[in-house]
Order: sequence, then C-alpha cells, then structure tokens
Amino acid sequence: MTEAAASAQTRQDRFERGMRVLTEIDGESGRKVIDSLADISPELGHQIVAWAFGDIYRRPGLAPRDRQLVTLGMLTALGGCEPQLDVHINAALNVGLTPHEITEALLHSAVYCGMPKALNATFVAKKVFAERNLLPVDSA
Amino acid sequence: MTEAAASAQTRQDRFERGMRVLTEIDGESGRKVIDSLADISPELGHQIVAWAFGDIYRRPGLAPRDRQLVTLGMLTALGGCEPQLDVHINAALNVGLTPHEITEALLHSAVYCGMPKALNATFVAKKVFAERNLLPVDSA
Amino acid sequence: MTEAAASAQTRQDRFERGMRVLTEIDGESGRKVIDSLADISPELGHQIVAWAFGDIYRRPGLAPRDRQLVTLGMLTALGGCEPQLDVHINAALNVGLTPHEITEALLHSAVYCGMPKALNATFVAKKVFAERNLLPVDSA
Amino acid sequence: MTEAAASAQTRQDRFERGMRVLTEIDGESGRKVIDSLADISPELGHQIVAWAFGDIYRRPGLAPRDRQLVTLGMLTALGGCEPQLDVHINAALNVGLTPHEITEALLHSAVYCGMPKALNATFVAKKVFAERNLLPVDSA
Amino acid sequence: MTEAAASAQTRQDRFERGMRVLTEIDGESGRKVIDSLADISPELGHQIVAWAFGDIYRRPGLAPRDRQLVTLGMLTALGGCEPQLDVHINAALNVGLTPHEITEALLHSAVYCGMPKALNATFVAKKVFAERNLLPVDSA
Amino acid sequence: MTEAAASAQTRQDRFERGMRVLTEIDGESGRKVIDSLADISPELGHQIVAWAFGDIYRRPGLAPRDRQLVTLGMLTALGGCEPQLDVHINAALNVGLTPHEITEALLHSAVYCGMPKALNATFVAKKVFAERNLLPVDSA
Repeated sequence: MTEAAASAQTRQDRFERGMRVLTEIDGESGRKVIDSLADISPELGHQIVAWAFGDIYRRPGLAPRDRQLVTLGMLTALGGCEPQLDVHINAALNVGLTPHEITEALLHSAVYCGMPKALNATFVAKKVFAERNLLPVDSA
Repeated sequence: MTEAAASAQTRQDRFERGMRVLTEIDGESGRKVIDSLADISPELGHQIVAWAFGDIYRRPGLAPRDRQLVTLGMLTALGGCEPQLDVHINAALNVGLTPHEITEALLHSAVYCGMPKALNATFVAKKVFAERNLLPVDSA
Repeated sequence: MTEAAASAQTRQDRFERGMRVLTEIDGESGRKVIDSLADISPELGHQIVAWAFGDIYRRPGLAPRDRQLVTLGMLTALGGCEPQLDVHINAALNVGLTPHEITEALLHSAVYCGMPKALNATFVAKKVFAERNLLPVDSA
Repeated sequence: MTEAAASAQTRQDRFERGMRVLTEIDGESGRKVIDSLADISPELGHQIVAWAFGDIYRRPGLAPRDRQLVTLGMLTALGGCEPQLDVHINAALNVGLTPHEITEALLHSAVYCGMPKALNATFVAKKVFAERNLLPVDSA
Repeated sequence: MTEAAASAQTRQDRFERGMRVLTEIDGESGRKVIDSLADISPELGHQIVAWAFGDIYRRPGLAPRDRQLVTLGMLTALGGCEPQLDVHINAALNVGLTPHEITEALLHSAVYCGMPKALNATFVAKKVFAERNLLPVDSA
Repeated sequence: MTEAAASAQTRQDRFERGMRVLTEIDGESGRKVIDSLADISPELGHQIVAWAFGDIYRRPGLAPRDRQLVTLGMLTALGGCEPQLDVHINAALNVGLTPHEITEALLHSAVYCGMPKALNATFVAKKVFAERNLLPVDSA
C-alpha cells in the first residue's frame, strides 16, 4: 500500500481523493454525472468517486492513457453505453490519446465486437470531436 | 397444476388471465406496450400477455415483489433495455418495493454489471421517480 | 476463389465491388452510413464496404435473403443496435423477406433472447414498415 | 388462429403438440435436454416444449429452415450458449441447411458479432459435423 | 453513514468487515475464490472483499435474501458466469431462499433473457442442489 | 494508403502479410487457431489472417501494445471469450505488456464490467502466467 493510500482512509478522505482523480481525468462531464445522482442515489455517486476513481483509477500500476484504452474497448464491447463513451472519449483526449489513436482503437474494435458496435462507438466519437473542433480526423 | 391453471386453457382464457396479471403488476404502461403492437405484431402482444404474464408471472412459487427484484437485475444486466426498465421500475413500486430498495438494488448491480449499466438503470429510476413525485431518495 | 474475387484485388477494386453489393442490399440508407463516416473514420467506412460487403456478403454460399435472416437474429440478440436494425430491416425487405416473415422472425427471437430484445427489435420494424406504408402486418 | 391451434388448448395437448415439433426439429438431443430438467425444473421443460415449440416454432409464417438461420445468428451473438448451439446446429442440418450454408452463416456472423464469437460458434459446428461425419467442409 | 461504517475506515478494517460478510453469505466457496487470487491479483481479491462485501453487501437498505434475487437475475442475464452462479446459488440457499424459489426465479428469467440463458443457469442450480442433496425439486 | 498496403493486394499477398503480423503478435497459439479451421471453415481462417491481421492490426496508427490493451478490455467485457483471452494475454506479453500491467487492466475492468467478468479474465491470466512461469504477480 502506498503512503497516499494509507493516508486516505476515512470515508470523506477517500471521496476527496477520488474527486481529485475524477476531475483530472473526466473534467466537468464526470462531475456532472455525480451531481445528477444527488437526488436519486448519492451513495452510487459516492462509490463511483471514492471507489472507482479514488481506489482503482489512481493506482500507479497502469498509466491513465492505458486505462482509457482498456475502457474504450470495454464500453464499445458492452453496447448501450453511449453516455459513458461520451465521458470517456473526452477523458481519452484529456489524458493524451490523439483523435487518430481513438478512431484507430474503434476501427480495431470491429475485429472483436463486429461492425455495429464499432459504428455506434465511432458516432459517439464524432459527436465529441465535433464539440471540441477536432473534425475531420484522417484515418488513412 | 393449480385449479386456476386448469380452468384457463383456451387461447382466449389464457389471454384474459394474463391481462389481469399484467394490469395488476404493470398498470397502464404495460397495457400501452401491448396496444402499440396491434398493427405490427399482435401475436407478440398475445404471447407477452398469455404466456409471460398468464403462464409464468401468476405462478405462486415466487412472490410478485421477488419477481421484480429478479427482473430489475436482469434488465440492468442486459443493457439497452431502458424502455422495459421504465415499465418494471413502475411495476416494482406497484408491488411494494420502496424507492430506497430499488436504488439499493441498482447500487448492488454495480458489483456484478459494472458502473455504466448501474448508472443507466439508475437514471431510468430517476425519471420514473420524478414522474411519481418520489424524489429525492435518501440512499445513505 | 471465384473469377470475380480474383479480379477485384486492388484496394480500389475491392471498394467498388463492395459498394455495388451494399447499394443492392441496403440501398440509400447503407450509403448514408458510409458518407457519415467520411470526417471521423473513412477507413471504417472503407472496411465496411470493401470487406463486409465486398468480401463477405457477395459470397455465393448463402443467399442474400438467408444472410438477412441471420443478421436480424444477431442484431436483435446483441441489443443496443437499433440504428443497424433499421438499415437491415430495410435490407430484409429489399432482398425479398415479407413483413410477416420479419415479424415472425422477431417473435421467434423472444424464445432465445427474451421479450425485451424482441420488443425493441419489433418497434424498429414498426418504424421501418410505417415509413414504407406496410402497416398493419397480420401475424395471426 | 389455425384449426390446429384451436384444437390444442389443454396443458397436456399443448405439451404433446410441442413434443412432436421438438422431436422433428431437434431430434434426440432436444428430448435429452427436457429429460435432464425433470428433477430440477420440470416446469421449465414443460414451457420449452409447450410454449417455445408448441406455440412458436410450429407457426406457419416462417419455414423451419429460416427459423434455424435466425436461431444460429442469435445463439452466436449471445455468447456462452455453446450447448444450445450444439443442439441447433444439429437442428439446422435436420431441417435442410447444408454444412456449407452453416459455416457461411457463421463466417457472416463475424461481420456483426466479431471474430471471437464467430470462432466459438464455428468450433461447435466442427464438433457437430465431426460427430455426423460431415468434415471437411469446403468454404471456398 | 452508520456507526459500523464509520468505525471501519482503515484498509485492514474494511477488509476484515468484508470478510465477515463474505463468509456469512458465500461460506467456504467465496473464501476459496479470494484465496485463488493470491498469486495473480491479490488486489482484486482485496476489492471484492473490502468493497463488494464490506461496503456494498453489508448495507442495511436491502435484505441479503433480496440481494441474492437481484444477483441471480444479473448473473443469468450476463451469460458466461457459471462459476459465479455456482457461488451465488449456494449463497441464495445460505440466506434463506428455497430450492423452489430459486428454480422459479430461473424459470422467470426465461421471459427476459430467453431459454438458453435460463437453461444454463438452471443446470448450474442442478449441480449445486445435487451437491447439497436437494434434488428433486418440484416446480409444479 | 501506405506503400506496404499498396503492394499487398492479391488475396495471397494479403494472406501472407497477415500471417507475418499474426505470427509476430500471437505466436504459435494464433497459428494453431487458423490450422484448426482448415477442415471446417478455411475461409474464416483466411479472413482472420488477411483481414484482421493483414488489414487492421498492421496499421501504424495504434501501437501493438495499445491494441492489446483495447483487446483485453473488449474480450473481458464480451464474456464467454476465454479461449480468445488466452491467445491475447499471451499476445499482450509478447508485445511488451508486463504481468502487473495486465492484472491491473483486469482489476480496472471490474469498474466497467463488474466483478464476475473481471474474475473470469483474471483466472485466464493465471493459467497463462503459470504456463509461462510468471507467477506470483504482485499487484500491491
């Protein structure tokens, strides 16, 4: 256990640690998801922050950029996770993946998940890239 | 075979028995789904009523409340079933599950299905609870 | 390898061969999907045309009508593929499946995929059939 | 409603009608599945026979061969259904699909489900074809 | 936050709290899963215990019996989770669900997940019930 | 289009190009999969080699190590792809991912896919690492 992990042990400390990681990776869109849970399931919001980000994401064994590659693969494969793909394609850009690397990862997903899921994920990327003025992407 | 099952054997009888169960559990929203099938696949509507509700749901071996817990778990895990989650979160309330029990079941689903599917289901619950003036829910 | 396959070996030839198959089966809606990829992932568009249609679909071992039956089954089972179901229910009509055969295939899917996915696919069929003035369908 | 449907209305009649369809399509392997349910869930066995086969499969709106094409697509896409693929690849052969059409359908599935699921289904076909002395299959 | 939650804040305390819940619900089979992770991913073992059981399962908002109903639904729907179904059908019996309620829940799952997944789960139940001398189950 | 792509245009050239990539990444285990398809679906084997590896994998836009991270995420999320996870955990090691990075990626997958799929994938890693004398892995 790292010293940082040892020092974040109260429920509140773990939440604050997670919120710093969440903000770094997902930026404003991650925070909005947590806020929108306040009146329906604040505990789900707490666990996403304190556990998913505070306990798992911050671990040093896999770089943030690598975590987003794994995450893009999972969200594409699961299907029906377009809102989460939106957040995580933004996150992927935030941690240093280029638009070309992202579309290449989604092209690669066609081999394992088939064309429909590759298409669904690519159209989410198109929306995110449009919002961030990153179109067109050259995948040649 | 119960006496009730024995007495509902014609196609029409099985349909009517199922419609009584469907109306009890799903209320108006279940009936609307069946109505919307009338011009595209009336037989699918018939089978949902006569088989799913008339043959399976009405069986005494598992209480209606318990059936909704299993159903919430399945619909959350399948993914892409938001319209059916809407119907069955309403049904869950109709058969006696509290809003807190429902959000707790969806928090529990994060352990088995992961955060994205837990989130998708929770946002359907938020919509249903808002329509029925059940917000905020305290999940502490 | 057929003579046709042998003669379409350059990247451009394979694309053109695929575009002929795509246009025959999916019509305008297939072409629109490829066009919408131009600024985000032209290579994904290329592979759908050159590989999926040019290499796989055109193979003589399974009739186009049979391929659409398999495809409807897969898209229904995968879940979350409503945009692709729209394209392929249109394609199914284009290659000779009747509206009744399509709704019957989706009723059949309830046995293997459950009611929610059968319903989701049937409502896409309802939308497509409405656009093509094919409602009501008698499934008796 | 056909006359046949009208005449099979008791629980026992529906079961017997279904058992005739099941035996025709799935042969011995279908019957074994039902038998193996006798001590754990006889009602699930009853519903597979009376509902899935007696009510749905026997409907005249889609030919048995066409139903197997849809079914192969669904079972391949769902994943984790190797035991059911075994039964239904046998069934596909029983209702007139050739080994080449079956492997072509599974090759086609790679486009929509990705290579892993296409491979898993193809290896089940290899096992079934070996048992029935149908190897090698030429897919050229 | 309950007092118990407040008092279990160190990494070690959260682990010990979770191990008590895990042992209560899953018994020996849960512990074996954790042990088998020791040489490959002790941190995954830690998180299953400290987070899944220590943070989520022990929450008072949903009874252990209800959590198992949701869990059986999810594991059946996900597919390919036979090892986890084995653990959780055992857990379901441990927290008070009867064999008949479990088979009834799995029969119910056929409506939402289709027959193949209902069958796969039911055959896991057959194995578990055989090991615990609970066969035959009468589902009439 | 790169010069390499331009020069590999015949069916045979594309196959040979793919076989070089497949051998580099997957080693012997990839080749065995292709060989085992020879008598059941040689065309599926051809497409895996010529298309998946020859057309997609070899593209320079995403490093081999990055492709394996995406692939591990997809195979974990899809479920029921244990044979492919075996091949690709080997591939991940071949292209430079460390055992610790792999187990960390699978721990990360618990957040998005839930514990059962994370566990299933981790136990495949355990088998592969044991075969390659890479146990124990320290994930602290």
